Amino acid sequence: MIIILKQNAKLESIKNLKATMIARGLTIHESIGDFTGIIGLIGDTSKIDMATVASMECVSDVKRVSEPYKAANRKFNPLDTIVNVAGRKVGEGFFSVMAGPCSVESEEQIIEVATRAKAAGATILRGGAYKPRSSPYAFQGLKGDGIELLLKAKAATGLPIVTEITSIANIDLYSDVDIIQVGARNMQNFDLLYELGHSDKTILLKRGLSSTIEEWLMSVEYILSGGNNNVILCERGIRTYENATRNTLDISAVPIIKRLTHLPIIIEPSHATGKTWLVEPLAKAAIAAGADGLMIEVHNNPSCALCDGAQSITPDDFDKIMVEVKRRVQFEGKILS
Amino acid sequence: MIIILKQNAKLESIKNLKATMIARGLTIHESIGDFTGIIGLIGDTSKIDMATVASMECVSDVKRVSEPYKAANRKFNPLDTIVNVAGRKVGEGFFSVMAGPCSVESEEQIIEVATRAKAAGATILRGGAYKPRSSPYAFQGLKGDGIELLLKAKAATGLPIVTEITSIANIDLYSDVDIIQVGARNMQNFDLLYELGHSDKTILLKRGLSSTIEEWLMSVEYILSGGNNNVILCERGIRTYENATRNTLDISAVPIIKRLTHLPIIIEPSHATGKTWLVEPLAKAAIAAGADGLMIEVHNNPSCALCDGAQSITPDDFDKIMVEVKRRVQFEGKILS
Amino acid sequence: MIIILKQNAKLESIKNLKATMIARGLTIHESIGDFTGIIGLIGDTSKIDMATVASMECVSDVKRVSEPYKAANRKFNPLDTIVNVAGRKVGEGFFSVMAGPCSVESEEQIIEVATRAKAAGATILRGGAYKPRSSPYAFQGLKGDGIELLLKAKAATGLPIVTEITSIANIDLYSDVDIIQVGARNMQNFDLLYELGHSDKTILLKRGLSSTIEEWLMSVEYILSGGNNNVILCERGIRTYENATRNTLDISAVPIIKRLTHLPIIIEPSHATGKTWLVEPLAKAAIAAGADGLMIEVHNNPSCALCDGAQSITPDDFDKIMVEVKRRVQFEGKILS
Amino acid sequence: MIIILKQNAKLESIKNLKATMIARGLTIHESIGDFTGIIGLIGDTSKIDMATVASMECVSDVKRVSEPYKAANRKFNPLDTIVNVAGRKVGEGFFSVMAGPCSVESEEQIIEVATRAKAAGATILRGGAYKPRSSPYAFQGLKGDGIELLLKAKAATGLPIVTEITSIANIDLYSDVDIIQVGARNMQNFDLLYELGHSDKTILLKRGLSSTIEEWLMSVEYILSGGNNNVILCERGIRTYENATRNTLDISAVPIIKRLTHLPIIIEPSHATGKTWLVEPLAKAAIAAGADGLMIEVHNNPSCALCDGAQSITPDDFDKIMVEVKRRVQFEGKILS
Repeated sequence: MIIILKQNAKLESIKNLKATMIARGLTIHESIGDFTGIIGLIGDTSKIDMATVASMECVSDVKRVSEPYKAANRKFNPLDTIVNVAGRKVGEGFFSVMAGPCSVESEEQIIEVATRAKAAGATILRGGAYKPRSSPYAFQGLKGDGIELLLKAKAATGLPIVTEITSIANIDLYSDVDIIQVGARNMQNFDLLYELGHSDKTILLKRGLSSTIEEWLMSVEYILSGGNNNVILCERGIRTYENATRNTLDISAVPIIKRLTHLPIIIEPSHATGKTWLVEPLAKAAIAAGADGLMIEVHNNPSCALCDGAQSITPDDFDKIMVEVKRRVQFEGKILS
Repeated sequence: MIIILKQNAKLESIKNLKATMIARGLTIHESIGDFTGIIGLIGDTSKIDMATVASMECVSDVKRVSEPYKAANRKFNPLDTIVNVAGRKVGEGFFSVMAGPCSVESEEQIIEVATRAKAAGATILRGGAYKPRSSPYAFQGLKGDGIELLLKAKAATGLPIVTEITSIANIDLYSDVDIIQVGARNMQNFDLLYELGHSDKTILLKRGLSSTIEEWLMSVEYILSGGNNNVILCERGIRTYENATRNTLDISAVPIIKRLTHLPIIIEPSHATGKTWLVEPLAKAAIAAGADGLMIEVHNNPSCALCDGAQSITPDDFDKIMVEVKRRVQFEGKILS
Repeated sequence: MIIILKQNAKLESIKNLKATMIARGLTIHESIGDFTGIIGLIGDTSKIDMATVASMECVSDVKRVSEPYKAANRKFNPLDTIVNVAGRKVGEGFFSVMAGPCSVESEEQIIEVATRAKAAGATILRGGAYKPRSSPYAFQGLKGDGIELLLKAKAATGLPIVTEITSIANIDLYSDVDIIQVGARNMQNFDLLYELGHSDKTILLKRGLSSTIEEWLMSVEYILSGGNNNVILCERGIRTYENATRNTLDISAVPIIKRLTHLPIIIEPSHATGKTWLVEPLAKAAIAAGADGLMIEVHNNPSCALCDGAQSITPDDFDKIMVEVKRRVQFEGKILS
Repeated sequence: MIIILKQNAKLESIKNLKATMIARGLTIHESIGDFTGIIGLIGDTSKIDMATVASMECVSDVKRVSEPYKAANRKFNPLDTIVNVAGRKVGEGFFSVMAGPCSVESEEQIIEVATRAKAAGATILRGGAYKPRSSPYAFQGLKGDGIELLLKAKAATGLPIVTEITSIANIDLYSDVDIIQVGARNMQNFDLLYELGHSDKTILLKRGLSSTIEEWLMSVEYILSGGNNNVILCERGIRTYENATRNTLDISAVPIIKRLTHLPIIIEPSHATGKTWLVEPLAKAAIAAGADGLMIEVHNNPSCALCDGAQSITPDDFDKIMVEVKRRVQFEGKILS
């Protein structure tokens, strides 16, 4: 951490600042010039609050040199983490395709979709049971019953399942769920992250609607620092001024996450754009950029369901997309798993 | 709601769409031209999911005509809501100043700040007990003990208190809290909003980091639709590309909220910008724009506290700001309450 | 400027870096720790390209300590600049109201609007002659004829005029124009800025649609560094994700510009939001925040003109707004000029 | 175009609105319900200004149904445009790689880079002569001499050249330039676009820093409507709140542009992110997403040049990237041209 002093900083104030930092176990490197005074802090600065330091009387600005996340940091954990999901691997050379409806609606629906998805090559079944909706008047999912139906589809097809949690109060219902998803709106629900960090479940952490990559990794850190290392990241588009798509898929997040962390990252092209015809080209781009998997919405009747659907593709479309996905996963030298 | 049909839409598909909408109790107005077909839906469309309609085969685009929020909508509730906070009024001609430290740190600190804030003219005491922090390694607040200390300060000064909730699991600790704050990161924690909507507490709902005004009002709707009408909104800056300030204060939100809803809105200039020298000019702008109050961070020793502080002002600075605030509240013909 | 070295930086590479900087007349302060090496550069770093330094082999990151603008910087020019516009002052305690139509349409129109605007208290007449339009099919203004009409209105009312330039090729037409406006889309048209910096005209420089304050000040620097110190800044809203308003008025820009520079800044509430009912509350907020003036669109028949108009108010509305503006300018201890 | 009327709209005002639209040759479809009145306009609405209509007394909102661009619109020009650049094809199945330094610095430099780029497989040489720089104190390029040096490199290698124009005043210097680039900051310099639309040069139009896709296509329309159909689009990253990269590459722009228009689109991964290690993964993603080409900065000594460089890769790195590019262009069934 580097502290840039004000030009007219008082000596006593600088002295106080240095004493505070030394008391926190940090070593100080000073560089005072005619126009600029700089104090470099060496040591573990992850617990120093930048905003507080910035507010100190003698301080003009504060800049971090090292990342504020440790457990997620590739510098300290250079090897790729491969997450094990009910025997299927996610990460490094193993590519995962999570497919299924936005919302579980009925036993018939989820089993049909699961069966079709598996036949096409999907490796994990997704489906929404608890649905966070921006309107209190919109369908909120089948909740516990939805999880039951997902488990039936799992029994019928052998596919592991991933479904979203919206409150830690329901955690017991997820005991047989293979991956617990934390949605974009809960990415900074720190109470929830803390509890999941103290569980042994695999967590799929979606990026917040307008979270920076650093904020996202700090949320990962909440889980890892609790002792749970089974985390998969999911980029699903960020909020920008552009309105041609619902969100803007930040494809750069894939190589950046691979460089900064040791964790797998998947892409969700469905939510990113809200347009079914963009799913295929963005899935191709994601594979080429180095993603470890895809999450794709598949619905057996996207045009009739009156909750969700705009970004769902049909099982027939999914079949075609998966032909391309398989060809390209192979081209990248990876294994569908 | 207006549905714009595809140019090559099949008649059967259009027929299905119309039947679905009629089945939902809506009346249909058709306007089919050579180049464009339009279907207008008349009736209560608040439960129709736009994304689903947009996904239907024959549909090119869907546009809302009426707002998706009802209980918050001034159209249906033209009179200003005045929220009563332990005998103090917020809204319409009553102006509220909520002041206090970002975090409660000790009994001595909170009572000193509360006493100074009250003397300067503050009408409500704010203070953080449960602190959502982006880093798991940062100070997370004194939690339950912090609420106890706020209650002591309330007893000592008579000021009502406002403090943030981060999990519904702790709701019992807030029984004597006058206003429960929902922070920006929890603005779309719908489980939390639902529960607060079924309580009788006054809720201060901050705008999410990058929430649209409509999303914000839908979150308000979660609370109001549960039967709780005691809601105060708080604009605290939105996320933009600009990096001269931490966030960009959206001053237009004040007149927009006053026009769209019947609820009071206050401004928090401290968090909006992260710079103490901007608190005064932005507080002045907020009063002039028609805000019903201010939330200002005041700390008795901002430069030494090692959690938070960059945006806190000292009690002496607060005294000066309040001289200006009082003059201007009076100029606007409002009453400090 | 502070250079943060890579942990594994080669000594030779560091040596080269230092030699390069010394050759550019800079003094070097080194601080090499076990985990972090920092090089501080003291001297005039305004000509050092940060991106290039960042690309050097041994460099991890580069951070500026001092602002890259000089002539606009209040540090080096502490006194407020008061711009003289045909005898009227803009800046410090002098408040300016520039009013008029988005587009000049006819002699009758511009003289009527000018007369009404002057009567209401406007101090400068605005009007568009060259109109940059996003569509090639939209009305592009009366061009040279429009400037002629503005000059007639100036002769008739005595109000100085401000109008936009879109190409340096037309500069001769602006010889009797009192203030040349550079629009948001041309804020980084550096060829145009350079030429205007070598003229003696007063320039009104609008902020770009998504320009940072620093970029805006660098564009100011293009003008000032050419020797032309007659610059007024105009904040007119920035592009964000919010769609309740056309742009988001960045009210913080007012106190920030006042702190960073010595130049006057005015606010344009009309373009910022695209809604006439927001003009009055935002004008009030601008005055309270410390702005040196307002630019307001006034049209004698906003509902019929088929180019522009959504954000125009009528002369009658302007009369009412000006009553408020005058009261508030006086309240701030400023003089309408 | 759909006009949504205010609930309390006066009949006379509606009558005026309809008369105005009929006078403009449009056909009107009305749909007046109890709560909502809608007027659909059928015909060529591209010259109707939405903002003006929105400002009319009886109007609540206006929404476009059809795109405001014609010449660029795939609906009216379904076949892919293949742009011919000195015998090399760009578009449809032909993939272009434009490589070279950000700035031309010397004859030796540009010829070496051109030779290396060609050997690696580049098909067009890029190089900056007129450089728009945000600081007036930064190196602004070799200008006319830079173009001369590019022409020497073209003579030496046979590669067509692309270089940026910043002012129409210099157009004569570009007579032997194969592609004239319009940079992001000039995307809405309509005077420049107009002139280029009346030339016969091939234009590479970069997307503005925070332009919507629709605004970008309206700028394309300025060129096409002048009679010049030789336009290539270039996505180079948009401005968002994310600061891990300089800009956020909007990969979705590729399939969207291919769907909305008939024009070729290339991707510039260098400027998009400002990080050399992101060039390769983003180039791969661009090819997979369907881009018609790449623009890549290559510099023979990126670490020493004191203007630009952070995003430049070395010729050796470029060799490696091109091995991947060639493999992938072939995989997509396209031809490097």
